Amino acid sequence: MDIKKKFGKQVKKLRLEKGLSQEKLAYEADIDRTYIPSIEKGERNVSITVIEKIAKALKVKISVLFDE
Amino acid sequence: MDIKKKFGKQVKKLRLEKGLSQEKLAYEADIDRTYIPSIEKGERNVSITVIEKIAKALKVKISVLFDE
Repeated sequence: MDIKKKFGKQVKKLRLEKGLSQEKLAYEADIDRTYIPSIEKGERNVSITVIEKIAKALKVKISVLFDE
Repeated sequence: MDIKKKFGKQVKKLRLEKGLSQEKLAYEADIDRTYIPSIEKGERNVSITVIEKIAKALKVKISVLFDE
């Protein structure tokens, strides 16, 4: 599977486990609220700084976002 | 430490462990050869697709690039 899609699936899985809405995750990560849906769909070639923001907002290490 | 710098240090560490030159890593990862030095210095906000290419070239899982 494409890495962007894999990442998006993992973000969605962890977000739902934490009981966060897409809007809440965007707020906690300080990224635009329209960005999360497209990330979760695997449409975004996210940068390392955005990856770090999402990990912090989900309270996980970055490596957890790439667990297989 | 800044995530870009942390990532750059880890890429350099793994590259040297594998005995690869910056040029060889760039070739294996199919990225521009001028890109690796600036990544290792922590100057680049690399994208997830570049992260994946570097991991494949180093023959490690992406999560290893974010080990602490």
